[in-house]
Amino acid sequence: MIQRTAHCEETMDYELYYWPGFPGRGEFIRLALEAGDADYIDIGNASPEGAEAVVALLQGGQDGHPHFAPPLLKAGGLTLSHVANILFWLGPRLNLVPDDDESRQWANGLQLTVTDFTAEVHDLHHPLGPSLYYEEQKAEARRRADAFIDARLPRFLHYFEQALTHNAKNGDYLVGRRLSYVDLSLFHMVQGLRYALPNAMAASEASVPRVIALHDSVRELPLIDEYLTSERRLPFGETGIFRHYPALDMA
Amino acid sequence: MIQRTAHCEETMDYELYYWPGFPGRGEFIRLALEAGDADYIDIGNASPEGAEAVVALLQGGQDGHPHFAPPLLKAGGLTLSHVANILFWLGPRLNLVPDDDESRQWANGLQLTVTDFTAEVHDLHHPLGPSLYYEEQKAEARRRADAFIDARLPRFLHYFEQALTHNAKNGDYLVGRRLSYVDLSLFHMVQGLRYALPNAMAASEASVPRVIALHDSVRELPLIDEYLTSERRLPFGETGIFRHYPALDMA
Repeated sequence: MIQRTAHCEETMDYELYYWPGFPGRGEFIRLALEAGDADYIDIGNASPEGAEAVVALLQGGQDGHPHFAPPLLKAGGLTLSHVANILFWLGPRLNLVPDDDESRQWANGLQLTVTDFTAEVHDLHHPLGPSLYYEEQKAEARRRADAFIDARLPRFLHYFEQALTHNAKNGDYLVGRRLSYVDLSLFHMVQGLRYALPNAMAASEASVPRVIALHDSVRELPLIDEYLTSERRLPFGETGIFRHYPALDMA
Repeated sequence: MIQRTAHCEETMDYELYYWPGFPGRGEFIRLALEAGDADYIDIGNASPEGAEAVVALLQGGQDGHPHFAPPLLKAGGLTLSHVANILFWLGPRLNLVPDDDESRQWANGLQLTVTDFTAEVHDLHHPLGPSLYYEEQKAEARRRADAFIDARLPRFLHYFEQALTHNAKNGDYLVGRRLSYVDLSLFHMVQGLRYALPNAMAASEASVPRVIALHDSVRELPLIDEYLTSERRLPFGETGIFRHYPALDMA
């Protein structure tokens, strides 16, 4: 019998590639990896060369595919981009979605509504698009924020309230009988909106009790609690999707 | 032996639910159904009650799931929403994507970049969001269009050019060796942008020859040619994503 001497190289199952220093769209992936107790490394934040590694992978990884924007997830030979696409793939692997096709497609549809919601929250401070700074579009941002708070914020929140009501026969989750990655993403929307628009959210929450109850139950999950109180959780700030500009909130 | 007398009811494999009268986001689904030679009915345009049927299905179909916005696709007992989600599901059924998981995830990532591109084109005329009319945001639209034409239009077009270059060893398509639903969607982006921003597109096309060649080859597909010259193809206008407001185009 030959005794093998292995060079033990530490390899992670998953590598997340996202810009360092702020939660951004990477956070939807981090929450799934954390709640799924996955073995992963957050490349962007793991070393001073993190951002360069993100840029390099955008230009093409092992499979050579170019990607438009992070977050990216590397798993084995595969590199995936777009939050909903990554979560669609990760969901069954982390036991964060029922594994039948119908549930997966329903979860994906809900996640794509989260994507749209996220884009509209981003455009609060970037109504003229991502190629100009907020400071170049403050007047327009004020008008967009009014319209968002009046019409779009309630519309999105009530949609998720309706989806939770529809699924209430199964439990307090969006999809089926257990926690899914979509619940984690909706939790993050509530967290981010409370940071960005505290007055508007304070005025809205009473009308969407199921959304808030889901947020609260995700907040108490042991793995999520451990994550949120760790150094891996990056603070909100003036970069990324959720920014607290008091001029944009309700008076 | 008992002879069965069947009441022959004509049933379609697929029902598309989208607002009547304009191409909108429904067009990405129509193009796949047409290129895949699918047996489908466009419910929104099939009768004067089409729009009511769309509203009713948004509130919950057979499975009861509420949906945020059309397009919706009904197939058997399933109701799906969001363009990319519908195409992910339809793709293998219409032979419009390779059927391995890796290709499907790559196609889905590309389609989600089309989704983002579409949203930015829409926001050209709605920089303050979808809850106000264009006429209420014309000045902001002019600024957003400038930024889009300067920075975002070339960025998106060059990204797809890069993806086509990457795949050129396999053929003139975005995914693998054959036509996929993502090619049809990119074709539609070129068609829509030529309508909405003819000057900006005239100035851009020479720098993205593979994108234009793909557009031209899709245009010549017999099933697509038949569709585009049929009454089923709805004209662009002042509703939906692609609108020709000369004030927003390059001078």
